[in-house]
Amino acid sequence: MKQLRPGDRVLVSCISACGKCRYCRETRFGQCIGGGGWILGHNIDGTQAEKVRVPFAETSTHPIPSGIADEDFLMLADILPTAYEVGVLNGRVSPGDVVAIVGAGPIGLSAIVGALLFSPSHVVAIDLADARLDAAEQFGADVTVNNGREDALSIVQGLTGGLGADVAIEAVGAPATFELATELVRPGGHIANIGVHGTPATLHLETLWTRDVTITTGLVDTYSTPTLSRLLGTHQVDAARFVTHHFDFEEFVKAYEVFSNASETGALKVVLAPTA
Amino acid sequence: MKQLRPGDRVLVSCISACGKCRYCRETRFGQCIGGGGWILGHNIDGTQAEKVRVPFAETSTHPIPSGIADEDFLMLADILPTAYEVGVLNGRVSPGDVVAIVGAGPIGLSAIVGALLFSPSHVVAIDLADARLDAAEQFGADVTVNNGREDALSIVQGLTGGLGADVAIEAVGAPATFELATELVRPGGHIANIGVHGTPATLHLETLWTRDVTITTGLVDTYSTPTLSRLLGTHQVDAARFVTHHFDFEEFVKAYEVFSNASETGALKVVLAPTA
Amino acid sequence: MKQLRPGDRVLVSCISACGKCRYCRETRFGQCIGGGGWILGHNIDGTQAEKVRVPFAETSTHPIPSGIADEDFLMLADILPTAYEVGVLNGRVSPGDVVAIVGAGPIGLSAIVGALLFSPSHVVAIDLADARLDAAEQFGADVTVNNGREDALSIVQGLTGGLGADVAIEAVGAPATFELATELVRPGGHIANIGVHGTPATLHLETLWTRDVTITTGLVDTYSTPTLSRLLGTHQVDAARFVTHHFDFEEFVKAYEVFSNASETGALKVVLAPTA
Amino acid sequence: MKQLRPGDRVLVSCISACGKCRYCRETRFGQCIGGGGWILGHNIDGTQAEKVRVPFAETSTHPIPSGIADEDFLMLADILPTAYEVGVLNGRVSPGDVVAIVGAGPIGLSAIVGALLFSPSHVVAIDLADARLDAAEQFGADVTVNNGREDALSIVQGLTGGLGADVAIEAVGAPATFELATELVRPGGHIANIGVHGTPATLHLETLWTRDVTITTGLVDTYSTPTLSRLLGTHQVDAARFVTHHFDFEEFVKAYEVFSNASETGALKVVLAPTA
Repeated sequence: MKQLRPGDRVLVSCISACGKCRYCRETRFGQCIGGGGWILGHNIDGTQAEKVRVPFAETSTHPIPSGIADEDFLMLADILPTAYEVGVLNGRVSPGDVVAIVGAGPIGLSAIVGALLFSPSHVVAIDLADARLDAAEQFGADVTVNNGREDALSIVQGLTGGLGADVAIEAVGAPATFELATELVRPGGHIANIGVHGTPATLHLETLWTRDVTITTGLVDTYSTPTLSRLLGTHQVDAARFVTHHFDFEEFVKAYEVFSNASETGALKVVLAPTA
Repeated sequence: MKQLRPGDRVLVSCISACGKCRYCRETRFGQCIGGGGWILGHNIDGTQAEKVRVPFAETSTHPIPSGIADEDFLMLADILPTAYEVGVLNGRVSPGDVVAIVGAGPIGLSAIVGALLFSPSHVVAIDLADARLDAAEQFGADVTVNNGREDALSIVQGLTGGLGADVAIEAVGAPATFELATELVRPGGHIANIGVHGTPATLHLETLWTRDVTITTGLVDTYSTPTLSRLLGTHQVDAARFVTHHFDFEEFVKAYEVFSNASETGALKVVLAPTA
Repeated sequence: MKQLRPGDRVLVSCISACGKCRYCRETRFGQCIGGGGWILGHNIDGTQAEKVRVPFAETSTHPIPSGIADEDFLMLADILPTAYEVGVLNGRVSPGDVVAIVGAGPIGLSAIVGALLFSPSHVVAIDLADARLDAAEQFGADVTVNNGREDALSIVQGLTGGLGADVAIEAVGAPATFELATELVRPGGHIANIGVHGTPATLHLETLWTRDVTITTGLVDTYSTPTLSRLLGTHQVDAARFVTHHFDFEEFVKAYEVFSNASETGALKVVLAPTA
Repeated sequence: MKQLRPGDRVLVSCISACGKCRYCRETRFGQCIGGGGWILGHNIDGTQAEKVRVPFAETSTHPIPSGIADEDFLMLADILPTAYEVGVLNGRVSPGDVVAIVGAGPIGLSAIVGALLFSPSHVVAIDLADARLDAAEQFGADVTVNNGREDALSIVQGLTGGLGADVAIEAVGAPATFELATELVRPGGHIANIGVHGTPATLHLETLWTRDVTITTGLVDTYSTPTLSRLLGTHQVDAARFVTHHFDFEEFVKAYEVFSNASETGALKVVLAPTA
């Protein structure tokens, strides 16, 4: 029995779920072992085309409620659920927490958006680029640290009576930023890795072994998409501000250039739409 | 208002709790910042004496129920709650799980005892010494792996349809064993570090970042002491078998020799008692 | 893409899951709003036939591992996951707990089996029929109470220093037994209702409001079927002993008579199989 | 070793904690069995005096951070942690939830304040008095229902596609309002009782048994006081608006009159302070 009908307005999620395997039945769709998981644009072609064939469409798409613009909902395809599930929920951000977010690119900004839903007392954004820190401030970080010239650890300790952050979120994907995240967290705190890593990091167990820390990694499962959809509907999550540029299908190359030169163009997310 | 009275039979826990600081009020006594924590035998003298002054005694001792021998209850001073809280509970061992325990010394054996309380389907003990693996089997591991000559990963994968262990517990405290633990665990699994580490380990984030793993570290808090006390009373935990040797106070040096040469003497825990 | 093939040996679960609705995507299959849920033998015909058409078969059946007898696995169709999920897991049975189970019919006995997986210090079975209490003892309850002539509350308080049970499981489905369950539980404890109720109960909020109790109700979701399957495979759950009688398809009426007169026949579960 | 010193500015909490009993060691201070719990103004005299002797002061008071007014912090003595712990946290309010709060007196308003910290999509306040519903709106409820003339159930169902609220919080303490809360909640939802009840309620198990609901009761433990203190410091919780009237110690009788006639005086909380 199909639920989808021709003409339905749906979001194609970055994660495909077979809906039948062990992991899908446990809500861990990102780990699908029935042929899905992170396959679109990774193991198979992605969705940059006028028409796409969507595997496991019944369990891998989400209806777009009326009243929400396509473009806003598009941010739920990957970036917002990733930061929310893998950063904010895995990190167990709670009211009153001090949350340190290492990296203020699009995924770090998404983590700010997600963290603010839990009313932390402080969100500290840490990055090497002032432009990204300005963006972080606009997205709601109340403390920004340029760790090229400021000492993130002492700033976080200053906010927490010397203890450290309740939650540290890694949103870069490099050994140094991961190691910084593990330093920033207080005893009993959480380190949530979102970053995509290509090389190992050093884990300082010689200090961490006594500190009751919890480190999590994860691929997005998109189980939070319905929740984020509701929050888009009530304007408690503002997805539109992630979209800095628009291009039509004639301008693919240009779009990628703008996106790759984010430091100059200020690009966060660029939207490619078929020529009307 | 004191609860302790002269003559009370109590256990002195390895963790002292001020009872008033932020961490003590959150049941995280091991992280006490009010002057307690792991101080006995670490920051101050320990308890190998006829009489000891116990800091914060009202909140750092546990009454010994009648019917339980001193010597059995003694195993609750450190080893059993450590393995149970930091290994088994942090690792979230659950019924039906495959649990891999790296290291079969006294703390690894304690982790076996604790894990069995949750009815895992398999407990796999991994060590380099056959004598320790024999002990592991006696303590209830149903699979033993000498990883000097056997491949722990393929054995664990064989038990789990190629997925990996639900929980991996590190009970050695060395980079190689920690790294093995991170390899053994399935996507979505838990790695609970109990080992005392002196050097950093390598964290293979280039593979782990997508695998939804949770890594925990921790010092024992002893919040589980009342639970373990009940299980001693019903004989569901058998502490006596940890005690392999007895010495009186005249034999301190000998006791330490036996304990340090565990591979030859087969010592697990040696009990030192004042000459009667 | 289908996973099932003709000839596969599978269990038809009591719960059908569409696999696509909000609740199915949250692992709460019993609450399926896509056409499934508890429908077999309730909203539509059940499975007492040579052949059955199974709705949503891909997400509502479970493969039977080789080495497990059909008849043993059959107990996972309803009774064992119901007692385990709705009684034991909802009730958060934990090592060392005192667990009071009100009702020692098949579902109460299943709750004993499930509770024992978590090493409670005591399992107290409460019933009006001595025969059922004898069964409870054989299934592993270490304390039995005939509350026609014994006072369950004082017995439970005697085991718990006057506090009450950590968990009380209602396995009857009557106002009086539910109310008893709420009386038996200690401050901070859990009351897990499994019983099928036809009339309201009285909730004594005038005493319960201060007592930090958690009351749960629930229909089975069958999310635990894979776990219980593993535990059948390792013989940590013994399903066979629930089957007291066998009948073939010529004997339907007789089978129902035996099952309805359980107090005389001692029937727990009767198995109906097609004549070979 | 005392932490308090003469002259310290501290809050006396409504809950006294001995700090040593089983419940205090589990952070459940409200259930203290060592002589504390809810005793001030209940089992012993309260604090309406120029000077008070505070039992277990070291573990039952909270330092007031500089920069927070006495009067604001005073709201943490009872009302805010009660609504937050027993209503919001027990009810597991989460981002995107629809939260129905039955009763818009001071404790219901506190529940609104606490719920908003978790970014629910809708907070529905239900009461019989328009004046209280006006207050609810000012405190942040986006939907108000006068259930003397409107049908709360159909309004909540209208907001939730017919399913019901994710969380229903009872903040009155009467059978009818508790029963309403159990009707309003969706399958899988939470009912958190805060109300002080004097008589039993009817629990409609004949419908609730299949609906996977969780019902909690509780006395405040005040474990959230440090969290709420941080949120007062950052102005994310605004306690001042609860204080509608001020009186000095000459005006006790008048103060009680104003407070008891809240429907006419609009009193939420009245502050009694010694004549300066």
